[in-house]
Amino acid sequence: MSTPAAKATPAACDLLVRADAIVTQDDERRVLTDAAVAVRNGLVLETGDYTDLEANYEPARRLDMSGKMLLPGLVNGHTHLPMTLLRGFADDLPLMEWLERHIWPVEAHLDEDLLRIGAQLGCAELIRTGCTAFMNGYFHEHVTGEAASNCGLRAVLGEGFFNFPSPFFPSAEACWETILKLEGRFRGDPLIRTVVTPHAAFTVSPEILKASFELAEKLDVPWQTHLAESPTETSACQGKYGMRPVEILRRNGLLSPRATLHHCVDVTDEEIGQLAGAGVNVVHNPASNLKLCSGMSPVQKMLDAGVNVGLGTDGASSNNQLNMFRDMGLAALLGKVRMGDASAVNAQTALDMATRRSARCIGWPELGRIEAGYPADMIALDLSSPNLMPVFSHVSHAVYAATGMEVCMTMVAGEVLYLYGEFRTLDISGLRKEATRCAKWVRHASEN
Amino acid sequence: MSTPAAKATPAACDLLVRADAIVTQDDERRVLTDAAVAVRNGLVLETGDYTDLEANYEPARRLDMSGKMLLPGLVNGHTHLPMTLLRGFADDLPLMEWLERHIWPVEAHLDEDLLRIGAQLGCAELIRTGCTAFMNGYFHEHVTGEAASNCGLRAVLGEGFFNFPSPFFPSAEACWETILKLEGRFRGDPLIRTVVTPHAAFTVSPEILKASFELAEKLDVPWQTHLAESPTETSACQGKYGMRPVEILRRNGLLSPRATLHHCVDVTDEEIGQLAGAGVNVVHNPASNLKLCSGMSPVQKMLDAGVNVGLGTDGASSNNQLNMFRDMGLAALLGKVRMGDASAVNAQTALDMATRRSARCIGWPELGRIEAGYPADMIALDLSSPNLMPVFSHVSHAVYAATGMEVCMTMVAGEVLYLYGEFRTLDISGLRKEATRCAKWVRHASEN
Repeated sequence: MSTPAAKATPAACDLLVRADAIVTQDDERRVLTDAAVAVRNGLVLETGDYTDLEANYEPARRLDMSGKMLLPGLVNGHTHLPMTLLRGFADDLPLMEWLERHIWPVEAHLDEDLLRIGAQLGCAELIRTGCTAFMNGYFHEHVTGEAASNCGLRAVLGEGFFNFPSPFFPSAEACWETILKLEGRFRGDPLIRTVVTPHAAFTVSPEILKASFELAEKLDVPWQTHLAESPTETSACQGKYGMRPVEILRRNGLLSPRATLHHCVDVTDEEIGQLAGAGVNVVHNPASNLKLCSGMSPVQKMLDAGVNVGLGTDGASSNNQLNMFRDMGLAALLGKVRMGDASAVNAQTALDMATRRSARCIGWPELGRIEAGYPADMIALDLSSPNLMPVFSHVSHAVYAATGMEVCMTMVAGEVLYLYGEFRTLDISGLRKEATRCAKWVRHASEN
Repeated sequence: MSTPAAKATPAACDLLVRADAIVTQDDERRVLTDAAVAVRNGLVLETGDYTDLEANYEPARRLDMSGKMLLPGLVNGHTHLPMTLLRGFADDLPLMEWLERHIWPVEAHLDEDLLRIGAQLGCAELIRTGCTAFMNGYFHEHVTGEAASNCGLRAVLGEGFFNFPSPFFPSAEACWETILKLEGRFRGDPLIRTVVTPHAAFTVSPEILKASFELAEKLDVPWQTHLAESPTETSACQGKYGMRPVEILRRNGLLSPRATLHHCVDVTDEEIGQLAGAGVNVVHNPASNLKLCSGMSPVQKMLDAGVNVGLGTDGASSNNQLNMFRDMGLAALLGKVRMGDASAVNAQTALDMATRRSARCIGWPELGRIEAGYPADMIALDLSSPNLMPVFSHVSHAVYAATGMEVCMTMVAGEVLYLYGEFRTLDISGLRKEATRCAKWVRHASEN
């Protein structure tokens, strides 16, 4: 009598996710088909053929994503979440007029209640459109931290400050204490980190920029600022310091791998070389740069020089979306015209920017891939959406054909936050009522 | 005993649609709130306050779109519907290489069965993303006509021809008979019209262009062609005829209100003046122009000069979507950087381009508005989508915040084609199977 070959006992795991395809974004950029992911303790245990994983694991739960493709959760390198409250409040205006005449006057009156609604709205849109981690910059950042933590999103919180008194701080130094408190408040929360966030080189003095960088070193967190967003900013810097924005940072020793610079639209070839040489990270925000008429960033040039360029949406008040799929498509489309080369910023490059590269920009380099040992942050796109038929390339579809609304599942650290229209960690209909109430308040504030 | 004041008897209507807001796109660009539309015989009878219309009408059916905003169905001024089959088949390539090495070799093998699947896929995406009418250009146009008519979409069919023999016609003149047959075949179908469609000034001789224009005059239908799509095309025209593309048309008397020119990216100020003076229509295709690295069209300049500029998606193989919301947002965003002016191509202008202006481009000027006496072509956007919260301006949301997937209802001539995920005139799951089969065929054809 013959006995069957010895079979290994199936290993336990928390969750087994099956899908038509997995765009892993691993080092080889493998796309697995008829595949599955095993998850344990919020991490990916293994990816591979569905039949193999089904045989090798005994999962506590199963999630059948047949007819879908999995992608790593997208990483939003730059946003101002509470500003979601001001979506569509002032359009078709240049950066400085938009800020000085519309945004700042209303912001001066925002309280924590309003910021909370704005941050929750932002979280809802990020979850809905497949973003699982973001780096923020705003005021009262504990509000955004709580919103993100409560709904299960990863956030890097940046309490912003200017050189001049703001409605939030009498001086930049007064912000230090808030940053330290923020850092302490979320210590131990695996979803929340912090980043030191001076507003820009034209609104914060070189001395304060340097002091804030030392604080980032002390806390061992990233340091972010807006830089070279537009020719107007360059003129402002030249008028104030006789230097272009990148030069201000370089002279003060602030170009470093710890630095993440948002925008870098108006940068020269020489400056790109300096950014690359120093190992600086740049976040590209194409929709916002177009809407405020700031220009088109030389993304492919920066990538070719060796700069790590990630991707962000900027705030919903200058985008007007927080949809990384939209900015991913724009990065690829604009990248071509900017360089006069249809092969510039190809689909794989744009997807890298929205995942692995953005992950490095926010100081969380283990995000942005679906791979054994890495966090189980992933999303599923429904391939039955007519705009995703037929399929020749999953990567092309993610970048050029998807709108972001094909996302039917969003997962962070193995926890499902959204599935087939249901927000599991947010009260979306309650939020709509709150948003309507807040919009009335904003309209009133802007008229007075 | 007192009698109540005499009350008019409610009038009969087929349908009463209620909505939170109606963006009418009428001459005053009114946005009605807490509003309704009464529909009879495929036409809008009246728009107004919901309570008034509820009192004035006795509808056979009601459609409650509370929590939604209504817009006119968007009008796609330029596409090649069967090419939807080639979505994502070849990306990140310049126009001529993409056409000559990838698209044309596969197209040479397409049969009617494959074109039918491509056209049906295209219709599904148009319906899903709120487009209710489109002007097409391709081969075997009766296939697209049948696909559109069967699923209830309006289409203007353009049987394309080159000067040189194509897989479809031995010569341009051989196409005349097909055009006449096409016109006869759909005569009496209220949804289908035709347009005479020479491919471009660099692929069709001036003599044939002129003869085709005379045909359009004889049939009293519009005349469309690709024109000034890229500097490469300009060079091709200069090499062949010693003239720029617009000049070729002008010298041959082809600039007229009957003409709709697709792209017009590479046009000089002088040429813009000529286009305006002649009353020509132009269709802007921003996504395709970026993807093929053709450039950015001077849209605001053309509008300021008085050119009627509509909007199109071009084919899904160079976009890679057929989503008018995406191109509408792009038109507004790119329009600003192209002019160096953040107020250029504002939200209302972009919406006009996608509705009323496109309607004129396709020779169907009564489309693109929700107004008494006009066709009842309309769509509803779900305002509970998190990216549409809060609402300050419905027009801004349609252009800058919507992805197109918020469309939850699409109606043509009073008939609902799509409602809450259900395609009423298409078998979407059958279509997915067919698309997969066709994609295998395309892959095979391209390898042989």
